[in-house]
Amino acid sequence: MWPDRRLIDLFGIEHPLILAPMAGLGTAILAAAVCAGGGLGSISCANLSPQVVATAIRALRALTDKAINFNFFCHVRARVDTDRDQAWRDRLSLYYRELEIDRESSLPGRLDLTPFDDAMCTVVEDTRPNVVSFHFGLPDRALLDRVKAAGCAVMSSATTVEEALWLEAQGVDAIVAQGYEAGGHRGMFLDPNINNALASQPGTLALVPQVVDAVSVPVIAAGGIADGRGIAAAFALGAAGAQMGTAYLLCPEAATPKLHRDALHRARADSTVLTNVFTGRPARVIANRLTREVGPIVNAPPDFPLPLAELMALRAKAEPHGSSDFTPLWAGQSAALGCELPARELTHRLVRQALERFDQLGSRPRN
Amino acid sequence: MWPDRRLIDLFGIEHPLILAPMAGLGTAILAAAVCAGGGLGSISCANLSPQVVATAIRALRALTDKAINFNFFCHVRARVDTDRDQAWRDRLSLYYRELEIDRESSLPGRLDLTPFDDAMCTVVEDTRPNVVSFHFGLPDRALLDRVKAAGCAVMSSATTVEEALWLEAQGVDAIVAQGYEAGGHRGMFLDPNINNALASQPGTLALVPQVVDAVSVPVIAAGGIADGRGIAAAFALGAAGAQMGTAYLLCPEAATPKLHRDALHRARADSTVLTNVFTGRPARVIANRLTREVGPIVNAPPDFPLPLAELMALRAKAEPHGSSDFTPLWAGQSAALGCELPARELTHRLVRQALERFDQLGSRPRN
Repeated sequence: MWPDRRLIDLFGIEHPLILAPMAGLGTAILAAAVCAGGGLGSISCANLSPQVVATAIRALRALTDKAINFNFFCHVRARVDTDRDQAWRDRLSLYYRELEIDRESSLPGRLDLTPFDDAMCTVVEDTRPNVVSFHFGLPDRALLDRVKAAGCAVMSSATTVEEALWLEAQGVDAIVAQGYEAGGHRGMFLDPNINNALASQPGTLALVPQVVDAVSVPVIAAGGIADGRGIAAAFALGAAGAQMGTAYLLCPEAATPKLHRDALHRARADSTVLTNVFTGRPARVIANRLTREVGPIVNAPPDFPLPLAELMALRAKAEPHGSSDFTPLWAGQSAALGCELPARELTHRLVRQALERFDQLGSRPRN
Repeated sequence: MWPDRRLIDLFGIEHPLILAPMAGLGTAILAAAVCAGGGLGSISCANLSPQVVATAIRALRALTDKAINFNFFCHVRARVDTDRDQAWRDRLSLYYRELEIDRESSLPGRLDLTPFDDAMCTVVEDTRPNVVSFHFGLPDRALLDRVKAAGCAVMSSATTVEEALWLEAQGVDAIVAQGYEAGGHRGMFLDPNINNALASQPGTLALVPQVVDAVSVPVIAAGGIADGRGIAAAFALGAAGAQMGTAYLLCPEAATPKLHRDALHRARADSTVLTNVFTGRPARVIANRLTREVGPIVNAPPDFPLPLAELMALRAKAEPHGSSDFTPLWAGQSAALGCELPARELTHRLVRQALERFDQLGSRPRN
């Protein structure tokens, strides 16, 4: 049925469809439902401690006996730069005044995300998820070797052909070719000048075949795919699978807040932008007041993910009043193609649509 | 053979592949060769006078009896703004000094492009090309009615769903959904704040299905398509045809200068950027010194296409020395997929690749 079975065989899944890991929005029941539908369920561990990750893996294991994927960030750890961080704070101060927030009493402690490290690797060795995926490159050689020795298949995201070649040379089993359309954080990691590199990021349709030509491992298309047409297009381009995140954000199993769901319902093809105002790294969200007034791209923001903390008090005050002015409304460019179905049904629907599309494309004229 | 025949029937062509109109790079023999290969050959009239257009249409008619397409710009005519234009001149003055060009003696007169007007419309009425396509929207109602009354099929480019809906409401026969990956000028015309709108432009994979869902006329995918995989993907997304420009730039029939060909040979997926430094409007080119040092996007450049004139003397001095520092190296994100074949052979190859791809996608597993 599927024109390319490499990913199916590699991961031991029924259908070559992957739920994108989505920090804060994905849940164990969402991942389990995608597994039940025959795809690969994923959990983002970006904002979880090793202890919570261990619990999450066991929780998902209790919900499914299918292959599961756990995703980790490999960013360079944030450096505190007092001047730069203060400048950022000053830049947002008008919003604190407007919302009448007493800054000093409301500021949370430093909110940081720990990149994949020894403690997290030990959890992976103990729990052995079938697939471990990374974002923003890969961990150090020694850590990567331990993940592979634990028997996990490894994948990571490439936003350019150069990144794909680098990942293949490090020994990944599959590469997610993340096109410009994708929601959430761009996985770019090779070019130190991110703002500069951002302007040349390729769209999914251009990126996938060029990555496929450059590497020999299976390539998974990501970015802008949210129905059977996008999945069929991914395979037409030479991908062995498709990864989708935004498509699942309206599922009842997703932890997507109401404000976010409302924005997704209103989204059109040109409702999103790449912005670094929320976390310091470029990510695609539905444009809102903060991206319009401060961003979308600012020079020299605080290191990833420090800006997140600065927005907590603003969100806490604005969101209860129905305002998403300061909320990162993560979404890709195909949000408008999403539909509100339970994730297992949605996965079945995506499979059916894609296979029907293949039939339509390959059907011979009747004689 | 083709899974969708609407465009084939509409234009009376053998294969639903369109040569993108490319001002300065396309030629009558290139268009004729694409026609001979079964596609729709196009000529850009953006930089041609009505008299030259009449000659060009007759020249192409002498080379082919197949359907032909002539393309016109519908931009708002440039306003001279002395302060702004002087500021731009000042911005480039360091390059004039570096290249030791005496500014006053070398500056050409004002170089402007006339949007489609009564004189051009008269040529269309006299010569009746099968297809007339527009970029940057459409001409006034009265002119559009005359083109349609002359029996020409009309198409134009949409970069958003909103633009596609607008074009359909004006009565176009087909819509080119121009994704972010596309080389040359973005056809965006509805949003007056171009720099702002640019940040939310959708990639081809996201744009095409959303346009297909919104309109009932046939949709032609453009942007990042340069081989059979991209063509097959376009049809998977619901397009009834594919338009390609960059793919044809290496053909011997194209007027692509050697410097430009060399750059295309070196291009990778992330070699291009959208810039407004060459013409005042956003267009995709291979990144070079000017896009890096002055652009890629500047605020408030002179109106389209006034900046072109300002670069003439710099190019005249730099290009003979093998420097493309100031040359607009028009290209889309799939330049690396291009190959150096005569255009008729290339068209045949694209058709063969696409049809093979359809077969691979639709083939049933052997029992």
